[in-house]
Amino acid sequence: MTFSMSKALLPVFEIELPALSNILDKAEAFAATKKVDPSVLLNWRLAPDMFPLLRQVQIVADQAKNGSSRLAGVEAPRYEDNETTIEQLKARLAKTIAYLKALDPKQIDAAAEREITFPLGPHNKGQMQGADYLNHFILPNFYFHLTTAYAILRHCGLDVGKRDFLGAIPMKMTAV
Amino acid sequence: MTFSMSKALLPVFEIELPALSNILDKAEAFAATKKVDPSVLLNWRLAPDMFPLLRQVQIVADQAKNGSSRLAGVEAPRYEDNETTIEQLKARLAKTIAYLKALDPKQIDAAAEREITFPLGPHNKGQMQGADYLNHFILPNFYFHLTTAYAILRHCGLDVGKRDFLGAIPMKMTAV
Repeated sequence: MTFSMSKALLPVFEIELPALSNILDKAEAFAATKKVDPSVLLNWRLAPDMFPLLRQVQIVADQAKNGSSRLAGVEAPRYEDNETTIEQLKARLAKTIAYLKALDPKQIDAAAEREITFPLGPHNKGQMQGADYLNHFILPNFYFHLTTAYAILRHCGLDVGKRDFLGAIPMKMTAV
Repeated sequence: MTFSMSKALLPVFEIELPALSNILDKAEAFAATKKVDPSVLLNWRLAPDMFPLLRQVQIVADQAKNGSSRLAGVEAPRYEDNETTIEQLKARLAKTIAYLKALDPKQIDAAAEREITFPLGPHNKGQMQGADYLNHFILPNFYFHLTTAYAILRHCGLDVGKRDFLGAIPMKMTAV
C-alpha cells in the first residue's frame, strides 16, 4: 500500500498550513514597512461579496480540521472565530497543525467508501462518499481559500511567489 | 483497494475542467451584457506580476495534462499556447479532458514511489517521488491557477459562486 486517503490529505496540510503561516509573517512585515495597520490587509477582499483575508485564513484551518475529522470519524474541536490579528490567525493555524498530527491516519484510510455527512450553511447538509468528499470537497475548498488568501495579499502588493505558496515541499531542484 | 493515485487525481480533473469551462461560458455572456470585449477579461490580472486570466486557464490545462502524463510515464502532447478567445480556451480544456480519459489509471497508480523529473522554468528541473509530486506539485498548482482564474473573474464582477467553482460534484444535499 503506497498511497491512501490519509496520504492524500495529511501531508498537504502539514506543508500548506505552515506555508500560509509564513506568508502571514511576510504580510505583517509588509504592513509595518508600508506603515499600514495589518487589519487593513485582514479586511481586504477581492470582491464585495467575497470573504476578507481574515475569514479566508479561518476557513483554510477549518477545512483541514473539519474535513480530516469527519473522515477519521471523530468530533473536531470548534474554534471561536474571534481572531482579529495576524498573530492570532497564526496561532489558529499552529493549533490546527498540532490537532491534525494527533489524528489516526488508519481511520481516515478506512473512510473511502463511508458516507460522510457535513453541514452546508445553516439550513442544509451534504452527503458524499469519503473518497469523493476528500477529492471534491475538502481539497478544492482548502485550496480555494488558501489561494484566495494568497491572491488578496498579492493584490495588495505583497512580494510573495509560487514557492511561498507551495511551501517546504520535498523537491530536489537542479540545473538542466 | 479503495483509493489510489489515479483516484486522487483523475476524478478531480474530470469535474474541475468542465467547471472552469462553464465559468468561461458565464464570462463570455457577462462580457456581452457589459458590452466589453472578452479580451479585456482574458487580459485581466490581480497584480502586475501575476499571469492574466488567459494564461491561468492555459496553465490549469497543462498542470492536469503534464502532471498526469508524467505519473503515467507517457509523453504529453504539447499545446501551442496560441489561444486568444474564450472559445479557444474552452477547446483546450475539452481536448485535455479527452486526453486524460485515454490515460491508463494503473500506470498512475504504480507511480507512487517512482522518481518524477519535471521542468522548472527554462533553467532548472525538479525531482520528486510520485506521491509527493501529486500532493505537493500537481494539485496545489492546478488549484492555484484554477482559483486565480475564478478570482480574476470575481474581481471583474462576474456573478459566480462556490458551486460554480466546485462543479458537478457527486453530493446529495438535503435540508437539516
